[in-house]
Amino acid sequence: MGEVRNKAALAREAAQAMNLLTTEQKNEALLRMADALVTERASIIEANAIDLERGRANGTSAAMLDRLALNDKRIEGIAEGLRQIVELPDPTGAVLEESTRPNGLVIRKISVPIGVIGIVYESRPNVTVDAAGLCLKTGNAVVLRGGSAALESNRRIVAVLHEALAQTAMPPGALQLIESSDRSSVDEMLKLNGLLDVIIPRGGRSLIQNVVQNATVPVIETGEGVCHTYIDDEADPAKAEPIVINAKVQRPSVCNSMETLLVHERYAGAHLAQLAGKLRELGVELRGCAKSRTLVPWMGEATEEDWRTEYNDLILSVKTVSSLDEALDHIRRYGTMHSECIVTENAERADRFLREVDAAAVYHNASTRFTDGFEFGYGAEIGISTQKLHARGPMGLPALTSTKYVIYGNGQIRG
Amino acid sequence: MGEVRNKAALAREAAQAMNLLTTEQKNEALLRMADALVTERASIIEANAIDLERGRANGTSAAMLDRLALNDKRIEGIAEGLRQIVELPDPTGAVLEESTRPNGLVIRKISVPIGVIGIVYESRPNVTVDAAGLCLKTGNAVVLRGGSAALESNRRIVAVLHEALAQTAMPPGALQLIESSDRSSVDEMLKLNGLLDVIIPRGGRSLIQNVVQNATVPVIETGEGVCHTYIDDEADPAKAEPIVINAKVQRPSVCNSMETLLVHERYAGAHLAQLAGKLRELGVELRGCAKSRTLVPWMGEATEEDWRTEYNDLILSVKTVSSLDEALDHIRRYGTMHSECIVTENAERADRFLREVDAAAVYHNASTRFTDGFEFGYGAEIGISTQKLHARGPMGLPALTSTKYVIYGNGQIRG
Repeated sequence: MGEVRNKAALAREAAQAMNLLTTEQKNEALLRMADALVTERASIIEANAIDLERGRANGTSAAMLDRLALNDKRIEGIAEGLRQIVELPDPTGAVLEESTRPNGLVIRKISVPIGVIGIVYESRPNVTVDAAGLCLKTGNAVVLRGGSAALESNRRIVAVLHEALAQTAMPPGALQLIESSDRSSVDEMLKLNGLLDVIIPRGGRSLIQNVVQNATVPVIETGEGVCHTYIDDEADPAKAEPIVINAKVQRPSVCNSMETLLVHERYAGAHLAQLAGKLRELGVELRGCAKSRTLVPWMGEATEEDWRTEYNDLILSVKTVSSLDEALDHIRRYGTMHSECIVTENAERADRFLREVDAAAVYHNASTRFTDGFEFGYGAEIGISTQKLHARGPMGLPALTSTKYVIYGNGQIRG
Repeated sequence: MGEVRNKAALAREAAQAMNLLTTEQKNEALLRMADALVTERASIIEANAIDLERGRANGTSAAMLDRLALNDKRIEGIAEGLRQIVELPDPTGAVLEESTRPNGLVIRKISVPIGVIGIVYESRPNVTVDAAGLCLKTGNAVVLRGGSAALESNRRIVAVLHEALAQTAMPPGALQLIESSDRSSVDEMLKLNGLLDVIIPRGGRSLIQNVVQNATVPVIETGEGVCHTYIDDEADPAKAEPIVINAKVQRPSVCNSMETLLVHERYAGAHLAQLAGKLRELGVELRGCAKSRTLVPWMGEATEEDWRTEYNDLILSVKTVSSLDEALDHIRRYGTMHSECIVTENAERADRFLREVDAAAVYHNASTRFTDGFEFGYGAEIGISTQKLHARGPMGLPALTSTKYVIYGNGQIRG
């Protein structure tokens, strides 16, 4: 039996014990994990240095190296993240529904851990701790498969966490790290029906699409966001301008940032030139439709490909539309059902947009950047689901639970 | 564009309009559908006769032909099923959560239709109407792919329903029937990401496994049930005997019937011979482990394969165990996480079983046959989920909904 199946089987075995832990036991384990990371930080930074050196030798970009790098402060931040998870309510064990049937059967629907969660992600080592913390807090076992660029860091981190868990009621086997950096180890994970209950991919488009296309284990699809902001002709410029700038510029690399601006032609005629100028000053490259370029001649030309592209960068495509209907059509055609916004003072049109746009999060007069578990008040986030089953939008701890019917009888049989 | 993609695209388009219908409009459409089935029953029975004749020519079993056959009474029953769906509350449009964030954003989580649901099923034509009714009631469009054995019946039924819908606010395009009986039409459906939001398979093991193994669209796995009943040594025989008989004999062909009986050795010593005799009188073939066969020598021998088999027939495998732990181990190893039961008067052991067994439904002193949407009081059932994501156990109308975050702002941007 290879590493992947072997570790998944150990996780499945540990899941049984995980399900029986109390909230206090789980919190105690997470606190021990946090303490151990801080105590053992020197050895983690040492392991991280190996990853960084390999990265440099391979010509990894400075931005990527920065995301990979650990230091005292970052490790303390990661440990603090675990402590924050401790503070969150445990969503398992709740009675969600209860009924007594005419035959006397009492039926309770209760929340339970999912079981074994597989996480496939890229190189940031903080995800290792964060994902582990969220899964373990909810009583799940977890099989982590991180990017090979962070392998030494992840190995040391998991070794430290295992040592911490060995002193608690939580079985260390509930936390498994796949160390094979072979691509086939991901492929194998995707087919482990019976051992893994769900796989959550966290990363770029190609990582996510590989999981969605090849997994036979159920998947929660996360991530891709071609998000739009539509400025209606009845928009208040004092709201529209900061919302657009925030949605594009504040953190362009993330999935809830805006990729396409849709502007009603009347608003565009009056305000687009000024708005485009401000965006350019902030370093944004603009690519517009023909109408937009008539108003802002220095804008580049948007191609069909631009409307479909998640730039994750300081690039914005701009389309001037003649109606709300045209904006809705565009979003229906090119949106990824992530986050969509209308800026308008017209309540009726806002209602129509909020109702008709099919997306995880629809906004009236606010930046799409708010689609986030912390901003929504969940205190945590395992990812942002862009599918419609199980969980949609920012996923907090409850997204890591399933349900179970418990039926109390007194000899009932079916007639 | 072939039939499958074309019809899925039409369903996707109709889903947009479906989402905007009121509950009254949806109910009105369902009532028209019910009336039309009754009015047009002669033409449906005529079409059904073609299927039956083809079935007879192909040597289809009498039992299968009976499941396929329609008559006045059955069509009235099917129409009545639609009227019952009308009576159920509409689960869409509900505000599931609402919060106001410190920055003033109001965040509402509301229930919405999933969008487009694909149903792949076998030959019973009543499923065509039932699945359509449940999906349409919840504001979803539906793409049906029934078994080729019922093709003429399904075509005529869907034509009748389309004529009925044409007189309502509901777009007939929301109901699509794939008529190609080629296996490749199923394969094509399974990959229609973007057009289908979910596929629900309804049928036997091979149909379900084909969907689970090959779909890239999210799937809700249903069905397979290797269900156990464990009789503890502190069981009351007056409860144990009827529960066991009911779970095996009342309707052996369905997924919630019992396939394996686990008996504590002390109970077995006192009662197994009598219980086995009663089961034999009821036509049940018994296949036992060595210990069981010592007590009941006429029992057949159970092989490893028996413990894994969903007989769906009057066959029962029997294992005598020396402890609750051994029973739990057996269920963990061979169960399909469907429905599992303990019969005991010992509350502590019952609690342990209910907590430790990982299944959609766990029973204390009641027949596993109750795992059913109607028995649970949901008034409907689209299937019984045996996976842990989205829905687990009997799925009523709420399982056909997703959620959406609607965020009301006043110019908020992220800091």
